[in-house]
Amino acid sequence: MLEELKQLVYEANLDLPRYGLVTFTWGNVSAMDRESGLMVIKPSGVEYGKLKPEDMVVVDLNGKKVEGRLNPSSDTPTHIELYKAFTQIGGIVHTHSTYATSWAQAGCDIPCYGTTHADYIYGEVPCVRCLNELEIEECYEENTGHLIVDEFKRRCKDPVEVPAVLCKNHGPFTWGKDAKEAVHNAVVLEEVARMAYLAETINPKIQPAPKELQDKHYFRKHGLNAYYGQKE
Amino acid sequence: MLEELKQLVYEANLDLPRYGLVTFTWGNVSAMDRESGLMVIKPSGVEYGKLKPEDMVVVDLNGKKVEGRLNPSSDTPTHIELYKAFTQIGGIVHTHSTYATSWAQAGCDIPCYGTTHADYIYGEVPCVRCLNELEIEECYEENTGHLIVDEFKRRCKDPVEVPAVLCKNHGPFTWGKDAKEAVHNAVVLEEVARMAYLAETINPKIQPAPKELQDKHYFRKHGLNAYYGQKE
Amino acid sequence: MLEELKQLVYEANLDLPRYGLVTFTWGNVSAMDRESGLMVIKPSGVEYGKLKPEDMVVVDLNGKKVEGRLNPSSDTPTHIELYKAFTQIGGIVHTHSTYATSWAQAGCDIPCYGTTHADYIYGEVPCVRCLNELEIEECYEENTGHLIVDEFKRRCKDPVEVPAVLCKNHGPFTWGKDAKEAVHNAVVLEEVARMAYLAETINPKIQPAPKELQDKHYFRKHGLNAYYGQKE
Amino acid sequence: MLEELKQLVYEANLDLPRYGLVTFTWGNVSAMDRESGLMVIKPSGVEYGKLKPEDMVVVDLNGKKVEGRLNPSSDTPTHIELYKAFTQIGGIVHTHSTYATSWAQAGCDIPCYGTTHADYIYGEVPCVRCLNELEIEECYEENTGHLIVDEFKRRCKDPVEVPAVLCKNHGPFTWGKDAKEAVHNAVVLEEVARMAYLAETINPKIQPAPKELQDKHYFRKHGLNAYYGQKE
Repeated sequence: MLEELKQLVYEANLDLPRYGLVTFTWGNVSAMDRESGLMVIKPSGVEYGKLKPEDMVVVDLNGKKVEGRLNPSSDTPTHIELYKAFTQIGGIVHTHSTYATSWAQAGCDIPCYGTTHADYIYGEVPCVRCLNELEIEECYEENTGHLIVDEFKRRCKDPVEVPAVLCKNHGPFTWGKDAKEAVHNAVVLEEVARMAYLAETINPKIQPAPKELQDKHYFRKHGLNAYYGQKE
Repeated sequence: MLEELKQLVYEANLDLPRYGLVTFTWGNVSAMDRESGLMVIKPSGVEYGKLKPEDMVVVDLNGKKVEGRLNPSSDTPTHIELYKAFTQIGGIVHTHSTYATSWAQAGCDIPCYGTTHADYIYGEVPCVRCLNELEIEECYEENTGHLIVDEFKRRCKDPVEVPAVLCKNHGPFTWGKDAKEAVHNAVVLEEVARMAYLAETINPKIQPAPKELQDKHYFRKHGLNAYYGQKE
Repeated sequence: MLEELKQLVYEANLDLPRYGLVTFTWGNVSAMDRESGLMVIKPSGVEYGKLKPEDMVVVDLNGKKVEGRLNPSSDTPTHIELYKAFTQIGGIVHTHSTYATSWAQAGCDIPCYGTTHADYIYGEVPCVRCLNELEIEECYEENTGHLIVDEFKRRCKDPVEVPAVLCKNHGPFTWGKDAKEAVHNAVVLEEVARMAYLAETINPKIQPAPKELQDKHYFRKHGLNAYYGQKE
Repeated sequence: MLEELKQLVYEANLDLPRYGLVTFTWGNVSAMDRESGLMVIKPSGVEYGKLKPEDMVVVDLNGKKVEGRLNPSSDTPTHIELYKAFTQIGGIVHTHSTYATSWAQAGCDIPCYGTTHADYIYGEVPCVRCLNELEIEECYEENTGHLIVDEFKRRCKDPVEVPAVLCKNHGPFTWGKDAKEAVHNAVVLEEVARMAYLAETINPKIQPAPKELQDKHYFRKHGLNAYYGQKE
C-alpha cells in the first residue's frame, strides 16, 4: 500500500539527521496521497538509524491507522489539520532544529532580512501563540494544527508562499508540494533563522529588507515570470 | 567481575566524544550495580582513543577500589554521593560540554523555555552554588556530591524527573536509569543549554514555557499516561 | 572551447560546499579569459552534486551565451559588470555564507579588527546600499554590479587590495586573480566576518586595528616588499 | 639533523587543522632542542596538505637558518624571543583560532570563569597591548616576543603556569614542555575562549571563579600534590 510514497517518506526522514536538523528522534516527515486521502508518516519515537521503509505508518485524515505495525508520530493530528486546510501541500516536516526552535522559544516572528529568506519564504515566518490550558489538555496536537491554520487566515498568508511556521515554546513546522520540498524548506528555515539571529546581534536597529527586493527575489524563483534555474 | 557492565560503561564513555560532548579526557561515565553495591567508572585522565573495556575501574560505595589496574576518575567521590542519595539512578555522566558548562560558569539555572527541554527535564535545570573554601579544601569531590543532593532536597526536586544539574564555575552532571540514558540526558542538556542561550539573546524579555505545556510534554513521554513512542 | 578554464571553474564551484560556504545551490563561481573576452560560469540552479565540467556556460561580456546547454547563473550580469570595471581580476565568487551574509543583512561594513583581516583585505569590507525600486525592477543583477563599482570609486578602493564586498540585504561577492583565489578570499571573508561578529560582542567599544598594523600585515604579504611565504 | 624533532614538529603542525584551529596556512608550531640551542619550525606559507617532515626548518637563536630548503615561518623571531626568555618551555604554537583571536581583536584578557580553564591555565589569559608605530616598523615579529615577555614580568606570571597569551588585534600564542603540549594548550585556550564568550553573554555580571577553586583545580593536576590521572 502506497509503497512508493513510503519509500519517499522514509528517505525524507533520513534526510533530517543528514542535514543536521534533528538529534535522536526529534523530528518527523509525512507525505499526503491526495487521491486516496491517505497520509504516510514516521512511527513515533523510533531512532533514525533503525528506521525501515516498511515502518512508515499509513493513516487517514480522521487519524485512523490504515496500515502499519507501529504507532504513528504523536504529532500526527497536527499534520492532519495542516493537510486538511492547506490543500495544495503534499509534505510536512516537524523538527527541533536549533535556531528555528530558539526563535520559537523566544516567541518571535522571523523577519525577512535578506534574499536568502525571500528566495523561498514570502514575508516573515509567523510565530503562533502558545496554546492555552484548555487547548493543551484536550486534543493538544490537533489544536496545534488549528492554531496554525487560524493564524495563517488571520494574517492572510498563503501557505504556498509561506511554507514555514513557528509554534511558541515548541518548534517549527515546514511544508511543500512533497516530502522532499518540505525537508528543503526545513533546511532553508534553519539557515534563515541562524542568519536573522546573527544579523540582529550585529545591528540591533536592523530593518526588514525592502518590499521590492523581497518581491524581486521571491518572484525571480516562483510563479509565471520566474527566470532562476533551468526550464524543466 | 561485572564484565557486562564494564563493557556498557566503556561504550557509554566512547559515546561522549562521538556526540561532541568532550575534548581530550574531560568527562567520565559510571554505572552502578545495585545488587552488589559496586560502581564501574572510567579511569582518570586516560584518552578516549586508548581506552579499553578492561580499563574500567570497580569501586565500592566507600570509594575503595575493588578491581582495576588504574586509578578511578578523580570525580569518583561525587558519583558515589549521587548513587547513595539518588537510589533510583543507575548511570552518571560528567562532561565539560560547551553550552552546559557556559551556563555553569555564568552561575545560572537553565529555565524551561520549550518542549525540547520539557520532554526530558521537568522544570529548570538547577545550578548549585560554588563550594566554599573549607568545602573545597577537604573532600572537594565528595562535597560536590553533597551539595547537589542538598540542593535537590531544598528545591524539592525528584532526581528522576530532573536528571541534570550544573555546578557553578565547573560544569554539568547528568544521570539516568543506566549509563546509556545518562549519556542521552547529557546530549539533551547540551542542546537545551544551547537553545536557551540563543532564545535569551533573541528575546531578552523571554519567559519560561507555561506550566501546563511543560506538564503536557513531560507526561506525554513519562509516567502512566505516556503515549509517545511504542509500547515495549 | 576554454576546456581548461571550464575545468578550473568547475573545481572552484565544488570548493564552495567543501569549505562550508554554500547550502544547496546558493552560490556560483566564474572565471574570465581576458584574451578572448569570454567568461565561464556555473549554470543556474544546478545542485553541486550533479554538476559536471561540461555544464559550465561560456558567455561574452554582453551577456550573450556563446556555448553551453544550460542557462548561466542568474547573477551573470553582476559578474560581467565586475569584470568590465575591475580589469585586473580573473575570478569571482558569490555565496550566501552565514556570517558574511549576516553582516550584509545588518547593512554594516566589516571593520578591520585584526591581522587575519589585514593579511588579505586592506581596510574595511564595504557594504553597498540596497538598490532602489527602479534599479531593482530593471536589470536588477546588472545594477548590482554597477552599484559595487560605483561604491569602490566613491571610497577610492582598489579592488585588488579589497577583494570583497557585501550587498545590503543580500550577501557577499569576492574576487581574485583567478577562480581559485576568489574562492580563497570567500573563505577568508567568512572567517573574518565571524571573528568581527564575536569581537564586537565581547567588547562593544572595540576599535579597528591601528592603521600601521594593518599596513604591516597587508604589505608583509603583498607588493614588492612582501616577505611572507616562499619566493616562487 | 634533529630528524626526530622535525618529525614531531611536523606532526604537531598537522594537528592544528585536525583540531580545527587553522584555516589555510594560518598557524605554525615550533620546538626547541635545548642541548644544541636549535629550533625547528614550520616553513612560511606552505599549505598543511603539502607539508613534509623534511620541510621543517632549523634555525639558531640568532634567527640564522642552519638547515632547510625553505624560509622559516615569518613569526620565527617571536618564537625565538619566547624560547630565550621562557627557558622551561620546549614548544610554541601560533594560530588564528576563531574564539581566541576574537578575544585578541577585542583586546581583552580572558578571565578564569571555571575549572576547564583552571585545570590548565592559572589565572586569566593576558592580552598584551598592540605594538606602537615604531615597534611595528622595525623588527615587528621580534618586538612581539619582547612585549609578551615584558608583560609576563609586569604581571608576575610564570609561563609554566600560564601557557597562553593573546596579542591585541592579532591572535594567540601557546606553549608547553614540547610541541605536543603546546598544541594541547592551543586546543584548551580555544575552548576556554569560547566558553568565556558564552558565559559573559548569558550573565553580563559574571565574576571570575573563586581563587580557592582555581587553586584546587590547577594543583589537582599540576605540581607535587597532583592526584589527577595515572602515576607515570
